Amino acid sequence: KALVNDEQTGNQGHPSLILTEQGVKEIRANLGSIPIFDKTLAATKQEIDAEIEQGFDVPVPKDYSGGYTHETHKKNYILMQKAGALYQILDDEKYAKFVKDMLFEYAKQYPTWPIHPKPRSYARGKLFWQCLNDSNWLVYTAQAYDCIYNYLTEEERNTLETDLFKPFADYISKENPQFFNRVHNHATWGNAAVGMIALAMDDDELLDRALNGVKDVDFDPNEKDNDGGYIRKDGQQIGFYANVNEPFSPDGYFTEGPYYQRYASYPFLIFAQALQNKKPEHKVFEFKDGVLLKSVNALLNLSDADGEFFLLNDAQKGMSYYNSSLISTVDIGYHFGGNNPGLLSIAKKQGEVTLDDAGLAVALGIKEGKEKPFVKKSIELSDGANGDEGAVGVLRSGGLELVFKYTAHGLSHGHYDKLSYALFDDGDEVVQDYGMARFVNIEQKGGGNYLKENTTWAKQTIAHNTIVQNETSQFQGKYDIGSQYHSNGYIFSVGNDSLQVASAKEENAYPGTKLHRTVVTIKDEDYDKPYVLDIMRVSSQNSNQYDLPFYFLGHIMKTNFEYSKYDVPKILGKSDGYQHLYKEASSTSNGENIQLNWLQNNKFYTYTAVTSNNNEIIFGRIGANDPEFNLRNEQTLILRKKNVNDALFVSTIESHGTYSPVSELAINAYSNIANLSVIHNSKEYTAVLIETNNDKSKVFIISNENNDKDAAHKLAINDKEYTWKGPYILIENK
Amino acid sequence: KALVNDEQTGNQGHPSLILTEQGVKEIRANLGSIPIFDKTLAATKQEIDAEIEQGFDVPVPKDYSGGYTHETHKKNYILMQKAGALYQILDDEKYAKFVKDMLFEYAKQYPTWPIHPKPRSYARGKLFWQCLNDSNWLVYTAQAYDCIYNYLTEEERNTLETDLFKPFADYISKENPQFFNRVHNHATWGNAAVGMIALAMDDDELLDRALNGVKDVDFDPNEKDNDGGYIRKDGQQIGFYANVNEPFSPDGYFTEGPYYQRYASYPFLIFAQALQNKKPEHKVFEFKDGVLLKSVNALLNLSDADGEFFLLNDAQKGMSYYNSSLISTVDIGYHFGGNNPGLLSIAKKQGEVTLDDAGLAVALGIKEGKEKPFVKKSIELSDGANGDEGAVGVLRSGGLELVFKYTAHGLSHGHYDKLSYALFDDGDEVVQDYGMARFVNIEQKGGGNYLKENTTWAKQTIAHNTIVQNETSQFQGKYDIGSQYHSNGYIFSVGNDSLQVASAKEENAYPGTKLHRTVVTIKDEDYDKPYVLDIMRVSSQNSNQYDLPFYFLGHIMKTNFEYSKYDVPKILGKSDGYQHLYKEASSTSNGENIQLNWLQNNKFYTYTAVTSNNNEIIFGRIGANDPEFNLRNEQTLILRKKNVNDALFVSTIESHGTYSPVSELAINAYSNIANLSVIHNSKEYTAVLIETNNDKSKVFIISNENNDKDAAHKLAINDKEYTWKGPYILIENK
Ligand SMILES: [Ca+2]
Ligand SMILES: [Ca+2]
Ligand SMILES: [Ca+2]
Ligand SMILES: [Mg+2]
Ligand SMILES: [Mg+2]
Ligand SMILES: [Mg+2]
Ligand SMILES: [Mg+2]
Repeated sequence: KALVNDEQTGNQGHPSLILTEQGVKEIRANLGSIPIFDKTLAATKQEIDAEIEQGFDVPVPKDYSGGYTHETHKKNYILMQKAGALYQILDDEKYAKFVKDMLFEYAKQYPTWPIHPKPRSYARGKLFWQCLNDSNWLVYTAQAYDCIYNYLTEEERNTLETDLFKPFADYISKENPQFFNRVHNHATWGNAAVGMIALAMDDDELLDRALNGVKDVDFDPNEKDNDGGYIRKDGQQIGFYANVNEPFSPDGYFTEGPYYQRYASYPFLIFAQALQNKKPEHKVFEFKDGVLLKSVNALLNLSDADGEFFLLNDAQKGMSYYNSSLISTVDIGYHFGGNNPGLLSIAKKQGEVTLDDAGLAVALGIKEGKEKPFVKKSIELSDGANGDEGAVGVLRSGGLELVFKYTAHGLSHGHYDKLSYALFDDGDEVVQDYGMARFVNIEQKGGGNYLKENTTWAKQTIAHNTIVQNETSQFQGKYDIGSQYHSNGYIFSVGNDSLQVASAKEENAYPGTKLHRTVVTIKDEDYDKPYVLDIMRVSSQNSNQYDLPFYFLGHIMKTNFEYSKYDVPKILGKSDGYQHLYKEASSTSNGENIQLNWLQNNKFYTYTAVTSNNNEIIFGRIGANDPEFNLRNEQTLILRKKNVNDALFVSTIESHGTYSPVSELAINAYSNIANLSVIHNSKEYTAVLIETNNDKSKVFIISNENNDKDAAHKLAINDKEYTWKGPYILIENK
Repeated sequence: KALVNDEQTGNQGHPSLILTEQGVKEIRANLGSIPIFDKTLAATKQEIDAEIEQGFDVPVPKDYSGGYTHETHKKNYILMQKAGALYQILDDEKYAKFVKDMLFEYAKQYPTWPIHPKPRSYARGKLFWQCLNDSNWLVYTAQAYDCIYNYLTEEERNTLETDLFKPFADYISKENPQFFNRVHNHATWGNAAVGMIALAMDDDELLDRALNGVKDVDFDPNEKDNDGGYIRKDGQQIGFYANVNEPFSPDGYFTEGPYYQRYASYPFLIFAQALQNKKPEHKVFEFKDGVLLKSVNALLNLSDADGEFFLLNDAQKGMSYYNSSLISTVDIGYHFGGNNPGLLSIAKKQGEVTLDDAGLAVALGIKEGKEKPFVKKSIELSDGANGDEGAVGVLRSGGLELVFKYTAHGLSHGHYDKLSYALFDDGDEVVQDYGMARFVNIEQKGGGNYLKENTTWAKQTIAHNTIVQNETSQFQGKYDIGSQYHSNGYIFSVGNDSLQVASAKEENAYPGTKLHRTVVTIKDEDYDKPYVLDIMRVSSQNSNQYDLPFYFLGHIMKTNFEYSKYDVPKILGKSDGYQHLYKEASSTSNGENIQLNWLQNNKFYTYTAVTSNNNEIIFGRIGANDPEFNLRNEQTLILRKKNVNDALFVSTIESHGTYSPVSELAINAYSNIANLSVIHNSKEYTAVLIETNNDKSKVFIISNENNDKDAAHKLAINDKEYTWKGPYILIENK
């Protein structure tokens, strides 16, 4: 039975944000028969009962994250939010009293607190060192207030609103427009915070501020935030709607990437849920063709087989859809997004639901056996507010997940990584994106904040599996330049499971140089796993050096080429991330294929690459100029072509075998690729011959300049004529 | 119902080795009602049916391991063994015929085969490149022959015995006494092989050869095997009983360590089982006070929380009691060793039983719900045939497992690692023993055999967490010297779960220098996890340099001391393993404690060490002089004391906190140790003061020269008098 609210009037009473009066009735009616909800409720009750027993503290703000006052205020808002929900669900006044007492303690102290003493933020808060955390506090606390609204007298409400909520909302908005009037995840939290308390207080002026920004304020347009991002662009839309409109593409891709979407999605969705419940006339879930609900699907599709998010832009490894903010994302996505049964299977893995109407809907869905697997397929997600600023393409085939990035820059968290890719195998990263140089909330490492190596290493082009020209990062490593451009998709064709193609072009990263990369997954009937074909085509007006790094993870087993390892490593370069790479060994190619066979997580992999005579092959290792051991010391292989205008890098990557340290059996330890060769390369076409050890071969041809699906092509190679329709063809020679 | 055989006559018919006539009857009677057995049987039937369908090959021997002929002959003996068991259990002649056909193919070809063409072994086989693998073949094939014995005509049996089994047994014994007449795992396989076929053929002369060796042969006493081990010692006992007697201590510890015991245990136990079944009058399981059954318990106790074996001597990481040879070890241990219900829980995890009388007993035990957890406690296992050649001490406390090694050398697989230790936490290695430099059966890496870095690195003292004097390995890294000596246990006291002490001395590794190490686990009531206290005391007649490496695994979070990281690493030394270590950073101590805080597997650890003024602190990394990337590039911290006769190294290791990349919460990220100091150190006593952050402190005092449990001690330190009884005391100052 679906929960209903009145499209005309919404929920006028309380609670009406994440819980509704009707929802509370239905939850109470179902308690004891909805296992996942009952379990979450019991755990929450146990936690809050213990906290009530112990008592709370509202300390004078003092610390950065990790410190006592920071962690205590953070804990407080979570406790209030939970206690509020418990009051509604269990109808036990001790929970309401707990929230009330804590709120009154805040209302007493808040007016006496100056700006937070720690100076590091461009927008310092009052409870916390940055307004961002103050906004977190308000998003949660508004829910608690809504839950105990009817428990309070009007006079009590007046006190709280006058002494605490209104000045609090003003502080993070009017008094910090450089924080509030942005399009950025910080501002999203700020907007949602003000919006949530506006809904709880029924304050339409404040709601308008949340939705449309603080009007008539001005601040330095050149001001930057702590991550080096510009605070505003000229003529920029502001407020919650602007924050939904700009970072989300029509496909629901969030331009900062899934790691930050995971963080941002909570305020987007919790506020949208409250707005939908209270003011359905805003039709917030229909905004921009339903982009908020599409974003849920996009986010989940940007996770690997284990649910861990792909590393796009600044992102910490290991973050996954098990993160608590994804509980509400999944539940809201289910409840307001048409009850997709695939989401139930993720909710079930999460093992927890939100204690509200959305969580009830999920719990009932699971109880009623509606769950289906959430199947992740190959998908292209456009970037840019209008969906015309490139995309992320994910090819999925036989356990492999290849994440190909041809997006816009990704705001202040973007990396200079156009046309890079990363490869996952059964949920394990095999060809990596480094992620970010930060240990979030680990105080030992730079206070848990971004380390300087994030700028000098992790964002740089050489830290990614893509072309570096003349040892200089794309866009000169400058945000002002990089944020003006985006790559462009060229082909994304995944209809045939045995042959999937993603192709994209980048023409601005290096002025005068055009990059065109095509990644293909090919399932050969004779082998267990598909393999990846990678064609990176570079053409320039000038003669350059081109480096293509390959960040394999694991232990080198064998190469088919000789190399000299230095007695002690050298440092590869001076800047743009090169200063962080040791050069451990090198070799010069003779024009034959090079092969690198390695072992990772008890699987054997081989990289096979076409070379030209005198290409340089470099074994590098991350870790130079890293005085505090901030970096992970992983390896790379760099293929370097010098003094050429044009270059073509062609390689395959196979996951072909397994090892067991228990049985000590090595199965299919070697590559199945006998030879890889370029049999044609012109402005119009590139053709690669893949010969395999089963004495078969395949030819892959791509049309470099015409991606029309219906165009007819004809090409003669070595006296053989190939004809086909569309931008590419794979011919099997048996 | 126990299976019975006649103590007087044994099982005279066939089958009588691993299956008995009575056993077969009982198995058939229980089929369908013994799930773990039924499941194993079904899987085996499916496998063998497919192989029978496909047909077999008996190729002319040609390859090393990994190659086709090697792998095929290896597969063949396993198929025959399984098919033989299926014939008995399922009573279907197609299985007998499969074994018979394959045996006749071998009987036809074997006489025509010369010595195997690959020259690498000191004892070349005929089917395989080494007699070891030929012996594997015969151990399995003898079981198959026993199973189909009654299916064959007498003439057929004569053909097989005359053309195949007898010459085969003669070849690996009489013709290769340098292989057969050893005390070594190779010889164990040889002895068992000859013994098994002797039992199958009822050949008492051959059985005597298996049990007591080939008499009246001589070979060069200075000959070494491929691992550099001596082939025989003067006046050495030979044959199966000698192989049981010498490497196993009275506690059942196998001197080569658990990795090799795992490999060796199959022939020991499978042959003992056959001998017990067929000739119970030998009372093989009573030999040496039941050492074979004790060895099962010892082996299982030398595994971590996941069942992975500790890394003692040459050992590959990841080997565990899930290895197939442990199925029979556990089943035989259960069936012949008094039906220990703890073994049933391991059998259940293994998910498989042997298809024989022992497997039936386990399956019945599980079915009848007799299973109990196999609880591993702190344990000391003596080394040496008489149990007087040192020991391995394992301290287990609150998820920590500390493996302290004060054994004899461990035959040709031994490392120069006296008084080293390794630490595991919830089954993860945290302070590591490197293990071996070998990728077993991975042909890409030196054919899957030992790499030269096993000798130059993995066996060397500096590769271990123990003292290196003057950059020279213990016993000069010479097997001839090291194998003459052993360390001696001094204290092993684990009666109090909150305070466990293992202490041992080594006085021969460096002539003129005495090493005395004491490791202690202390459970402080204020903290979640126990911590380790390590006291390494060195005293010498000469002035030396002492290095104590600490092989922490994980990422450095923070140190409490400044260090300079070099632009490019230096190489630490010239020989004895030092040539494989890069020196990445260094520091000089000021006499205060040094602390190293690191993160591994989302747990925070801290190492705290007492230093003297001007001790050198070196951050090293494995990987120098490693031209083929054979080594893992892990880190170490080395504390170096120069130009001293005596030295005292005192440190603690804590597992104190956790991190989650999903919640991004760091809990208890810092050490609880406020200060560590030596408050007394004399010839007689060493006392350490441990001050913790809860403003409490403890004093640990050890009596260095009197380990009498009843001796009374009195010691004044800083005007305070301590009196106690026994070799150590922990005093808590509250
Ligand atoms: Ca994963
Ligand atoms: Ca383990
Ligand atoms: Ca080891
Ligand atoms: Mg990146
Ligand atoms: Mg970017
Ligand atoms: Mg070792
Ligand atoms: Mg040893």
